[in-house]
Amino acid sequence: MAADQQDSLPDGSLLAAVDLGSNSFHLIVARIEHGEMRPIEVLAEKVQLGAGLENDRLSAEAIQRGLDCLSRFAQLLDSVEPSKIRAVGTNALRQAHNRMEFTMPANEILRSRVDVIYGREEARLVYLGVAHTLADDANSRLVIDIGGGSTELIVGERFEPRQLESLQMGCVSYARDCFADDLINAQNYRRAYNCARVETSHIRHRYHSGHWAECVGSSGTLNAIEAIVIQNGWSDDGITRKALSKLEKKLLGFERFDDINLEGLSENRRNVIVPGVAITSALFDTLGIEHMRTSKGALREGVIYDLMGRLSHEDVRERTVNALVQRYSADEDTAAVVERRCRTFFSATQGPWGLQNEDWELLHWTARTHEIGMAISHKHFNRHSAYLLRNADLPGFSQQEQETLAILSQGQRGKLSSDLLEELPKSERKRLHYLLVIIRLAVRFKYVEPLEQLPDFGVQAEKKSLALGFPEGWLEAHPLTLSELEQEQSYLGKLGVELSFS
Amino acid sequence: MAADQQDSLPDGSLLAAVDLGSNSFHLIVARIEHGEMRPIEVLAEKVQLGAGLENDRLSAEAIQRGLDCLSRFAQLLDSVEPSKIRAVGTNALRQAHNRMEFTMPANEILRSRVDVIYGREEARLVYLGVAHTLADDANSRLVIDIGGGSTELIVGERFEPRQLESLQMGCVSYARDCFADDLINAQNYRRAYNCARVETSHIRHRYHSGHWAECVGSSGTLNAIEAIVIQNGWSDDGITRKALSKLEKKLLGFERFDDINLEGLSENRRNVIVPGVAITSALFDTLGIEHMRTSKGALREGVIYDLMGRLSHEDVRERTVNALVQRYSADEDTAAVVERRCRTFFSATQGPWGLQNEDWELLHWTARTHEIGMAISHKHFNRHSAYLLRNADLPGFSQQEQETLAILSQGQRGKLSSDLLEELPKSERKRLHYLLVIIRLAVRFKYVEPLEQLPDFGVQAEKKSLALGFPEGWLEAHPLTLSELEQEQSYLGKLGVELSFS
Repeated sequence: MAADQQDSLPDGSLLAAVDLGSNSFHLIVARIEHGEMRPIEVLAEKVQLGAGLENDRLSAEAIQRGLDCLSRFAQLLDSVEPSKIRAVGTNALRQAHNRMEFTMPANEILRSRVDVIYGREEARLVYLGVAHTLADDANSRLVIDIGGGSTELIVGERFEPRQLESLQMGCVSYARDCFADDLINAQNYRRAYNCARVETSHIRHRYHSGHWAECVGSSGTLNAIEAIVIQNGWSDDGITRKALSKLEKKLLGFERFDDINLEGLSENRRNVIVPGVAITSALFDTLGIEHMRTSKGALREGVIYDLMGRLSHEDVRERTVNALVQRYSADEDTAAVVERRCRTFFSATQGPWGLQNEDWELLHWTARTHEIGMAISHKHFNRHSAYLLRNADLPGFSQQEQETLAILSQGQRGKLSSDLLEELPKSERKRLHYLLVIIRLAVRFKYVEPLEQLPDFGVQAEKKSLALGFPEGWLEAHPLTLSELEQEQSYLGKLGVELSFS
Repeated sequence: MAADQQDSLPDGSLLAAVDLGSNSFHLIVARIEHGEMRPIEVLAEKVQLGAGLENDRLSAEAIQRGLDCLSRFAQLLDSVEPSKIRAVGTNALRQAHNRMEFTMPANEILRSRVDVIYGREEARLVYLGVAHTLADDANSRLVIDIGGGSTELIVGERFEPRQLESLQMGCVSYARDCFADDLINAQNYRRAYNCARVETSHIRHRYHSGHWAECVGSSGTLNAIEAIVIQNGWSDDGITRKALSKLEKKLLGFERFDDINLEGLSENRRNVIVPGVAITSALFDTLGIEHMRTSKGALREGVIYDLMGRLSHEDVRERTVNALVQRYSADEDTAAVVERRCRTFFSATQGPWGLQNEDWELLHWTARTHEIGMAISHKHFNRHSAYLLRNADLPGFSQQEQETLAILSQGQRGKLSSDLLEELPKSERKRLHYLLVIIRLAVRFKYVEPLEQLPDFGVQAEKKSLALGFPEGWLEAHPLTLSELEQEQSYLGKLGVELSFS
């Protein structure tokens, strides 16, 4: 269990989720009533962060549009405690190499860290949001969310996703890449449709209609399409293949995005509806979809439900870590020794080093998983642990959390390569240095403990130093531990902490 | 099962193993009698390949010494079929970046490929060699082999190793690094001893005397030490801590390696016995060894027993691959589809492309394991499969085999990065290109097969081309498969094979 969660979730608590999408930003503020969440504020703004992506860099204008929007959102967040706000960034932020130019000021504005999440984690959260709007029957469903930069597909039953996928296709990126000058013609449309078919063909075998009983769409594009086909009388209920074909034909009659004039289509959707329909049409054809209904549940609701879990000790990340430990048969006793030792160091250093509760969570997960790489090989097992923590699908974890766990695991022992920490912003670096000091010392002692009855020792921390005080004579009687600590002195020095012992 | 093993192992068969060690090269030729192996020729030469290592490169002299020795060995190999010869290279060849300058001519001389094996695989084979010389009781044992460049430690019972380790310490490398000018004094000796203690301390928790009932030494250094302590009357049976101390004292009385004069010490061992004793002494102290007996079984015998298994359909590599498929829950049905399809292509191309039985084995293992990376993540799963195949401990596989499987798995789909094949020698490259063509096409069809009832199609191979002939109209009716094949055309072109289809 993630220890020390001081938070609880009484009725009346306010929670907030911010979804920083490639097309729109969304805000939802919800109140807990009888253990359920009730939305009290819902906002959406068309920021089109993804349209400002060029060569995987966000333009200064796009960043400014995004931050301006967040400043407006922030007014509604005043009443929510920072620990009860979660902001997630999706495809545009996943892709942008300069994402920190956006996330750093965004963290300040929101009083909460922006978590950039992987496509599969986005899919999981979308499913969570949608599943809460559906009947609790045993039907298996395909849930689809066509976003601005990526499209998430999930096959699941009840609240359990069975298959999660995120494809690199979205209405904003396809508008940019397939419809130069917003020009609508058969050739551009065909190009978008074909790209989407090829993209989808790779997952067809796991997502085609043989795998599910009903299909449910979520979010802007699919909600917009449903509104149009219903209001134009092309369908009575949801989106059908036939209605979609009528819509395609109608859209191809316009010359440019700006000319589009259709009942049920909002101004906001006008310049992304054509690529959105091309993607939808390709999905229908490739996966054999005949009918799709839509749900009002989406990523933002999923984030709220996930946050409710975290705050009431049902953190999906704990389940993920348990599964990881199981799969890679990591030794739980050794992990427990290391975690206990981390605790000793964390308690002694938390004040002087300014460590937070979430830092403890990171240490806790690192301790539990630090040996998983041994399932690959004992040799360089720390690198293998890092590889797994960085690359595995870890439901509940953000991209940064996975990266941080990977860094802590890789740096648990041996030389500290200089590029290990280089890419981090300075503020993060300091914190990670401290966490590395703790995990390294904890790991140093893990084999000594059972073999040599490591005695209780004192830990004294200052901002830049750490002093260990052993019972008199003990270190002298254990020259190997002494020599290991001496070795560690030089490594910790590189992390800015002077280690002494006596 | 590895198909198509044409070999069998009747009585009278001759097998040969060559051990290309860092200190000595060994040859053993054995005859099968009543299903057991009986050595008929045993040769050893002190080549000291490891002494010729500088900055991880073998000197031209060392390479020449090695090849000269192999030419002498080759005379005894005339009567052995190439498929029944196995040559393994250990630490010096693992370390040498220019190892191919040695292995390429060595392959020619031996008429069999030199397999460079990982430390853990070396440990497994040592254990196999030793276990055959010991009583078949249930005692757990620690087996130690101090070599020229590395030291292998194994804890096991009967024929099953439970723990395998290979440490970077050996009598040749320690002679070079700790005893400048072959000078013997307390300071140099202490340095070697301390290095060995630190090296061993990291594995102490898994190898100390609480984990085994008896300790057995293998190979040159430990056999030599036993001979000395027995002949000098310091021990009646095996090596004791006390006898070792007497030997240490005696050795420290000499000034240089050349001066050493001790009953029971052969000329050949004189310049590596001091570092060998320092390592042995450190192992005794760190692991709590009181007594060690030695065995005549060693790596070369292990290689023979392993070869016997391979030739009689008990290939440990099959077991390894099964375990891998199990651990990573790879889908066996999909693997079977891909393997069957590989078979189709292999049969059609074997002749024109000059493929061998061992190439089929590689395809067979690649097909079985190509999806193991999905256990990490679907995204880039081919890279994860490659990571596992490259880095995991895979008993029975050589370093090159693991590398080849990794390349085939990584290249199974997507873009072919130009550096993927660059490091290979030209002769290998051609072969791998062909194998990549086969695995890529097999993988392309794996999802089509169950969904669209892929029809039988003809395969026509020439040296630089491959033509697929589908039933009339089928490709036109399956435009996605058609577009995938068109895409594949350009990739296969890079591999030197022109793909056509109709």
